[in-house]
Amino acid sequence: MVRENEIRSGEVAVPAPPPTDAGLVFIGSIRTPWTSRLETPRQGRTDGPVCRIEVFDPWVDALDGLEAFERVEVLYWLHLSRRDLVRQSPRNDGTTRGTFSLRSPVRPNPIGTSIAALDRIEDGIAYVRGLDCLDATPLLDLKPARDLFTPIAPPQPGDFQIG
Amino acid sequence: MVRENEIRSGEVAVPAPPPTDAGLVFIGSIRTPWTSRLETPRQGRTDGPVCRIEVFDPWVDALDGLEAFERVEVLYWLHLSRRDLVRQSPRNDGTTRGTFSLRSPVRPNPIGTSIAALDRIEDGIAYVRGLDCLDATPLLDLKPARDLFTPIAPPQPGDFQIG
Repeated sequence: MVRENEIRSGEVAVPAPPPTDAGLVFIGSIRTPWTSRLETPRQGRTDGPVCRIEVFDPWVDALDGLEAFERVEVLYWLHLSRRDLVRQSPRNDGTTRGTFSLRSPVRPNPIGTSIAALDRIEDGIAYVRGLDCLDATPLLDLKPARDLFTPIAPPQPGDFQIG
Repeated sequence: MVRENEIRSGEVAVPAPPPTDAGLVFIGSIRTPWTSRLETPRQGRTDGPVCRIEVFDPWVDALDGLEAFERVEVLYWLHLSRRDLVRQSPRNDGTTRGTFSLRSPVRPNPIGTSIAALDRIEDGIAYVRGLDCLDATPLLDLKPARDLFTPIAPPQPGDFQIG
C-alpha cells in the first residue's frame, strides 16, 4: 500500500463495490510543500510549514466566522490513494492489520481529516500549520475543531439522553 | 437550515456546482436511537446510548486491530442535509455565520466526523457511545482516534520539517 500504490506481501485487496452512493464536490485546493508521496509527513506538526487552503467560489463567504477559532478540522480527498485494501502492512514485513485500525490514506473512502492550527484567513485563503497532505490535494470541508465549538442552536432531546 | 431543510431569514443559498468530482461508497450503516432530526443530539456524549456501527461486506475484515483503541473516529454521510447554504442562522434570529464556522450538518460535502468511545467489536459490528447522528446514517470510514495513533510505517522527510 501507500507509497506508490504497490501491494505488499500479506496485504488483501477486495473487488470493491463502485463508489456511486454519493458524490463529492471539490471546494478548494490545499497547497503544501510536498509534491511526492515519498516526502509527505506521516503526521502533521503544529510547528510545521504554513500551508494554504485556497477556497473556491462560491464558498469563500462560508469562511466568515472561522477566524475566531485557533484550530480547524480540515477534510480533504486523498486523490492518489487506492481504495481496495482491507488489510495493510505498514512495515512491509508480511504482518498486516485491518484498514480501519490504521490512519493510512488507503481506505474505501479516502478522506483525510486533520486538526490544523489556524494562522489567519485572507482573501479566501486559510493559512494553517499541521497538515500532512500532498500539494494540490482537493479540499472537502473546513469546520471549527470539535473541542473549541459549542453548538449555537438550542439543544434537542437527544442531548440529554444517557444510556 | 437544518431541522427540516427550511431556509431561514438571512441565510444564503448558492447555485452549487454538481457533486461529481469524486464518488463515495457506503460501507456500513449506523444504528442510533434517533429517528427524527428534531430529536437527534447536537453533540454526542460519551455517557450517551450505545450505538451500533454495522460494517458491510467486503469491509468486515478491515476492523481487525481497531479493538485496541479506546476511541475511534467515525466518518458518515449526512444523507438528509441540503448542501447549498453558504451562510446559516443557527438561532434563527436573522444573524448568520459562514458554513465553515459551524459544525452544522448542512455543508457542501455533508460529511460528519465524531470521536466515539469504543465499547467492543463483535461480528462485524462496532458498539460505541458518543454519536449524534440519525438512525440509518450511511457509514463512510472508521479510524483510530488521532491522539491515540502512532504511525507504524517509518517516518518520511516531511515529518522533520518545521517552518
